[in-house]
Amino acid sequence: MFESAELGHRIDKKTYDERVPVLRENLLEAQFALGRRRDFPVLILISGVDGAGKGETVNLLNAWMDPRHIVTEGFGPPSQEELERPAQWRFWRLLPPQGKIGIFFGSWYTRPIVSRVEGNASTADLDRSIQEIIRFERMLTNEGVLLLKFWFHLSKERQRKRLKGLEKDPATRWRVTDTDWARFKKYDKFRKWSEHTLRHTSTGNAPWYVVEGTDHNFRSLTVGQTLLETMRHRMENGEGDAQQVRFTTAPLVPPIDNLRILRTLPTDAALSRKQYDEELLRYQGQLNLLTRDPRFRDHSVILVFEGTDAAGKGSSIRRITAALDARRYRIVPVAAPTEEERAQPYLWRFWRHVPGRGGFTIFDRSWYGRVLVERVEELCPPASWMRAYSEINDFEEQLVRNGTVLIKFWLAITKEEQLQRFRARETTPFKQHKITDEDWRNREKWDDYEIAVCDMVDRTSTEFAPWHLVPANDKRFARVDILQTVCDRIEAALNKKH
Amino acid sequence: MFESAELGHRIDKKTYDERVPVLRENLLEAQFALGRRRDFPVLILISGVDGAGKGETVNLLNAWMDPRHIVTEGFGPPSQEELERPAQWRFWRLLPPQGKIGIFFGSWYTRPIVSRVEGNASTADLDRSIQEIIRFERMLTNEGVLLLKFWFHLSKERQRKRLKGLEKDPATRWRVTDTDWARFKKYDKFRKWSEHTLRHTSTGNAPWYVVEGTDHNFRSLTVGQTLLETMRHRMENGEGDAQQVRFTTAPLVPPIDNLRILRTLPTDAALSRKQYDEELLRYQGQLNLLTRDPRFRDHSVILVFEGTDAAGKGSSIRRITAALDARRYRIVPVAAPTEEERAQPYLWRFWRHVPGRGGFTIFDRSWYGRVLVERVEELCPPASWMRAYSEINDFEEQLVRNGTVLIKFWLAITKEEQLQRFRARETTPFKQHKITDEDWRNREKWDDYEIAVCDMVDRTSTEFAPWHLVPANDKRFARVDILQTVCDRIEAALNKKH
Repeated sequence: MFESAELGHRIDKKTYDERVPVLRENLLEAQFALGRRRDFPVLILISGVDGAGKGETVNLLNAWMDPRHIVTEGFGPPSQEELERPAQWRFWRLLPPQGKIGIFFGSWYTRPIVSRVEGNASTADLDRSIQEIIRFERMLTNEGVLLLKFWFHLSKERQRKRLKGLEKDPATRWRVTDTDWARFKKYDKFRKWSEHTLRHTSTGNAPWYVVEGTDHNFRSLTVGQTLLETMRHRMENGEGDAQQVRFTTAPLVPPIDNLRILRTLPTDAALSRKQYDEELLRYQGQLNLLTRDPRFRDHSVILVFEGTDAAGKGSSIRRITAALDARRYRIVPVAAPTEEERAQPYLWRFWRHVPGRGGFTIFDRSWYGRVLVERVEELCPPASWMRAYSEINDFEEQLVRNGTVLIKFWLAITKEEQLQRFRARETTPFKQHKITDEDWRNREKWDDYEIAVCDMVDRTSTEFAPWHLVPANDKRFARVDILQTVCDRIEAALNKKH
Repeated sequence: MFESAELGHRIDKKTYDERVPVLRENLLEAQFALGRRRDFPVLILISGVDGAGKGETVNLLNAWMDPRHIVTEGFGPPSQEELERPAQWRFWRLLPPQGKIGIFFGSWYTRPIVSRVEGNASTADLDRSIQEIIRFERMLTNEGVLLLKFWFHLSKERQRKRLKGLEKDPATRWRVTDTDWARFKKYDKFRKWSEHTLRHTSTGNAPWYVVEGTDHNFRSLTVGQTLLETMRHRMENGEGDAQQVRFTTAPLVPPIDNLRILRTLPTDAALSRKQYDEELLRYQGQLNLLTRDPRFRDHSVILVFEGTDAAGKGSSIRRITAALDARRYRIVPVAAPTEEERAQPYLWRFWRHVPGRGGFTIFDRSWYGRVLVERVEELCPPASWMRAYSEINDFEEQLVRNGTVLIKFWLAITKEEQLQRFRARETTPFKQHKITDEDWRNREKWDDYEIAVCDMVDRTSTEFAPWHLVPANDKRFARVDILQTVCDRIEAALNKKH
């Protein structure tokens, strides 16, 4: 993969000086067009070997274009905040929104390759990282991100010459440290694992561009020109040039005997007032103790509440928060996305709320909107919600692997019960704000929603993040059931040996 | 993932008897429509736990539809022929062509899951297989295959009851062996690793359908109905419903300094007549010995010849075969695909020629046509040849991992040299058949081809299958260079410790 980047590519000064002004003008124009259209973001990854001009190129791109619309991020060692969350969190939070250009200097490739070279990771570990990267980048490009990956390369001989040259000159000698030579000794290993990684991650939707880094003029013009042509290409062709991936499956069909998992829940599960008062107190006390356990600081908790309209999500959440110190939890109510959120891949708005160690976050509705309301109301095409199942599983797997206790509740009430609650809301003055025309419209689509929920459970109830289906016709039963589940799951996590 | 398949789904006899005739009629109609259109193949995978009705369902599908247009394949332990080739070969060779329905009873999922359950493979091994499967299935669906994956499930309790029931009845007692109970003991493990595999391989383009296998009527109607709706959906929507995957990259652009790897080859490399005669004999002798070495029987050799028109591929090949026993090699000249080949994914025609142990196959042109002539002549869309690079790398990696010595030659001549050879062909009577208008037309696209070749080398010259670029202005030099490379590579493979 590196053959062509060891040929000694070079552009003479005269040619460079002639071409740069034209390129800059065109780049600026493309950048402004992007800002006006705001229909996709550009994300540029700058990776490769040391001394191949990565930093200079980043600076140059900022100089050539309007830096106010470029977000440049250098990724060094992760911060404490970042260490407490899944590794991918730091990249998610800094993704450029539609209309902007993001430059990542260092990226999700750095850690996997370096860990393998240093012997801190096995080949199987690297391959797992590679597959996660492929899925992540596919999600990004599916969501519309224009992803450009540059790999700056220097041959071993050039690298040696560079270090020798720097050492020889008194003015630059300080730039060469023992670390540089120690790294140089690992050149072959680095090359081998880089090639392995690049080969597997050079996909049709996000290919690598390998750039020889020896000559400043060549590498600068190459990156600038590639960026320009790619942006233009996308703006001119848009989705017209989109790859046709056949979506071969029929719309998912419900079980032919109409036996759906939601219908198998007991509708008469109930608690007496007395039982309820006792158990509520008991589990609230237990939950309070658990969250104050010193071991809790190594974990975080995410609760997801989904359910039929009027199933009692809000009141169940209040029974949990009643047991918690107000400084310890955060409720994220999920409604229509903000303008900022709409300019990002759909999971971005949830990633931003991922808690650090010791955090306790409650999502009142969640990322499952993609496969529920967006599916049923046809707010996104079938292909988008179909791929969401595995994107969500990937997201949740990262959370759980990072030590998060992820508990997902579906609160289920029967159609009759919902009707009664809707009517009660209409006739009780202080509840009238809780019932709108939309609720009645949703109710008409009861069957479609039920099918979507069953598919969701089938496809996202996993070993590491199972769904808890809660019969909620009796509010008391539901609240205690939920509290007990939360306590059990947290307790199990705290007692688990690492 | 199995929750819904443990609910006790059931269809009563009356309903079943009512629905089957309608379903059969519709299935037959869809099957005939598929045969008339011949624009895509249907591939059905039947997998899952023992005793869940897999075999009965396969029989039923054959009974319900016209079995003449169904290819049913049961995959037991691989044959000797199959063992000698990459594991995926047995599936490639039996893929249904466009217009037909293929049913695979057992599939590429069987070995990875069973190996993990039996402890013969690690989780990392399983995950690697899973990723290969995902890439393979994406390639299939990209190539137009309608892929339907059914997983037949039985809960542990049902499975126990089934075995007990069979044992109790004297008429069926013989059907339950110790092996069945030994397998039953591993139920939980099997369930765990199946779920792991299903979750990761349930993709937007090829999701799993989990079917509860307890009740004959339910599972039969479910499979039949799903098949019918999926086929209808595809025939009605076709590509119109295709998922739009953004193809975000610009067309690949050649190096801006026009320093292309092909142009860096020495054009004056040459051998004298005397040197040539000596070395030719020497390497031909060595090659002959190498292929008769007993260790050669553990390997196979694939040579790929690509090159500029008139670069001397044919005469170089003859210098190799001259050293071989005619029973030992096979030349595969690659021209336009046959009708049968056009009805399959583009790599199918090459998979069918993959040699077994001790085999020696020479491809005169190859699968690289996809990224050369098909790219330059715009015979396939950019997205298709862009994804071909990684599909080809996957293909070649499987070959090499299986012990194949894969050697790829690009024979390069200069534009001037080509002109002379074309003219010589025109004026030499016995060579006139070798020069056509097409050769002259290709020559006009010299630059486009050169760019395509350089991209091909950059993106498919890998650690395990590097390209050998052969300066071929001097035929003698090229022939000896090729022979020597073949000898060196085979010798290295024979001496490599396993």
